[in-house]
Amino acid sequence: MRIGVIGAGALGLYYGAMLQRSGQDVHFLLRRDFEAISRAGLQVSSVQGDFYLPQVQSYRSAAEIGPVDLVLVGLKTFSNAHLIALVRPLVGPHTHILTLQNGLGNEELLAAAFGAQAVIGGVAFLCSNRGEPGRVHHLGEGRIRLAAYAEESSSAVRPIQQALIEAAIPCEISQDLVRIRWEKLVWNIPFNGLCALTGKTVTDVLQHEPTRELVASMMHEVICAANRQPLREPIEAPAFVARLLEISAPMTGYRPSMMIDRLEGRPLELDAIYAIPLQRAKACGATMPQVDMLHRCLSIGEAQAGVGGE
Amino acid sequence: MRIGVIGAGALGLYYGAMLQRSGQDVHFLLRRDFEAISRAGLQVSSVQGDFYLPQVQSYRSAAEIGPVDLVLVGLKTFSNAHLIALVRPLVGPHTHILTLQNGLGNEELLAAAFGAQAVIGGVAFLCSNRGEPGRVHHLGEGRIRLAAYAEESSSAVRPIQQALIEAAIPCEISQDLVRIRWEKLVWNIPFNGLCALTGKTVTDVLQHEPTRELVASMMHEVICAANRQPLREPIEAPAFVARLLEISAPMTGYRPSMMIDRLEGRPLELDAIYAIPLQRAKACGATMPQVDMLHRCLSIGEAQAGVGGE
Repeated sequence: MRIGVIGAGALGLYYGAMLQRSGQDVHFLLRRDFEAISRAGLQVSSVQGDFYLPQVQSYRSAAEIGPVDLVLVGLKTFSNAHLIALVRPLVGPHTHILTLQNGLGNEELLAAAFGAQAVIGGVAFLCSNRGEPGRVHHLGEGRIRLAAYAEESSSAVRPIQQALIEAAIPCEISQDLVRIRWEKLVWNIPFNGLCALTGKTVTDVLQHEPTRELVASMMHEVICAANRQPLREPIEAPAFVARLLEISAPMTGYRPSMMIDRLEGRPLELDAIYAIPLQRAKACGATMPQVDMLHRCLSIGEAQAGVGGE
Repeated sequence: MRIGVIGAGALGLYYGAMLQRSGQDVHFLLRRDFEAISRAGLQVSSVQGDFYLPQVQSYRSAAEIGPVDLVLVGLKTFSNAHLIALVRPLVGPHTHILTLQNGLGNEELLAAAFGAQAVIGGVAFLCSNRGEPGRVHHLGEGRIRLAAYAEESSSAVRPIQQALIEAAIPCEISQDLVRIRWEKLVWNIPFNGLCALTGKTVTDVLQHEPTRELVASMMHEVICAANRQPLREPIEAPAFVARLLEISAPMTGYRPSMMIDRLEGRPLELDAIYAIPLQRAKACGATMPQVDMLHRCLSIGEAQAGVGGE
């Protein structure tokens, strides 16, 4: 399978490297890491065993890659103004596009440009970050949940799952993209924002009773809003919150991506993780007052910051 | 009048210096500035004209000051565990104690130790900060509102007002201490916390529409809770909020005290400005959900910080 990776941050580099190692024909659009990877290849430091790809097909422009079978999108959503232009050169008549980006609104953007039949959504549970140029760190997890954006794209889901599993990436298929997106938001909305705002890790937030209670309360808010969306089955609030808190407990010192974005002076993914979910909630008659307040507090940091980054 | 100043931060130094300049017999308990002021006096850089006090009666311990007519308390409330021990050596049978500290709970602490007849509450509208040791900056305002803590202390209010006015400190008397405390909180609760949490000034917060709206919404929350307290007359919400936003607009780049405390690594005055107001609101059946959330977010920074400072 000819695969193009757009948005080769930690997530794009890691999954792209795993796919290449399994024998896929992977092409990376690179910016920061172009020089290093072109010259010396890509080092993956992984909890599941380090590996090294001496030869990586790397590009500075999407046009040089040309049409592929599968586009894997890992672009930070604050760069979504460039999403369509970056993906377009890779799209031929039979191309599928898998977006593993955070939050809501990404599949809709892609479907509007390339048709619903092309779009697959995915939610990645991956702890990773970039090291020096040419190196990516895989710290834990890695599982992906896939779902078709529309009936017309559903036949593409299984071959993609197959390729991911062959690449040793655990992958399951869901029939409900809206639900898996909102389930991820139940974690992302409280932790990304609170950690970015306070500069504290997931562990700090959970060990401090007043913020732990706040996290749980925000999770309930998000679930209430999620359950007003067109889900096949509702999310069961108390059980789901309990499970998320339980799986977060061992994430010792974990810094969510938005906290890292803030620490490194990048823009924050506020539209995908806050503004669009708040709009969708409101449109269904649900309010998320705590989420709204957190979004307002985060947004003031952005008001003065320029938008750039990758 | 023999006056002792306990808690000689910017506020205590400024008001103490003004009182000394007007001819009062002022004694300062000092810590950080003791060496500098003992050696070279106190410099006041003021928007109303700089002045210099070459001789200042400064002490390292309250016991050396001994009984006074008036104790002026400017201690940061996060040091209230030491309040009574610091004040006690200054209290004789006819001493009055004026606390200009932030938030709620200070008069009650003093009254429990020294009797309600001794306690006067005051709210200061003062923009000031400390410079290098031996210097205090008066940036603007300076008005004080005084009120007796109880009927038994009301006869002491007018002589204190007189002394303050003679010292060129604008001072008015209120009959309602609970109301003036809560009125001050309507400003302090949103601005102190939001500026400390986001690292943005009052101007930044007001110029960014989402946080400006949040400030107004929190002000309404505080007023609703205030109006459940035993006030003589309720606070008129829309008019009062509009007025506070109006007087805050020209505070160009102003950093509230809690923001400075955080930037300088001191503890925050969370009990006086958040925890006690939240308790009093709850006791009257009022909830302040946004205030509660802000308090939780601020408190995590304190969970790991040691409590010290002056």
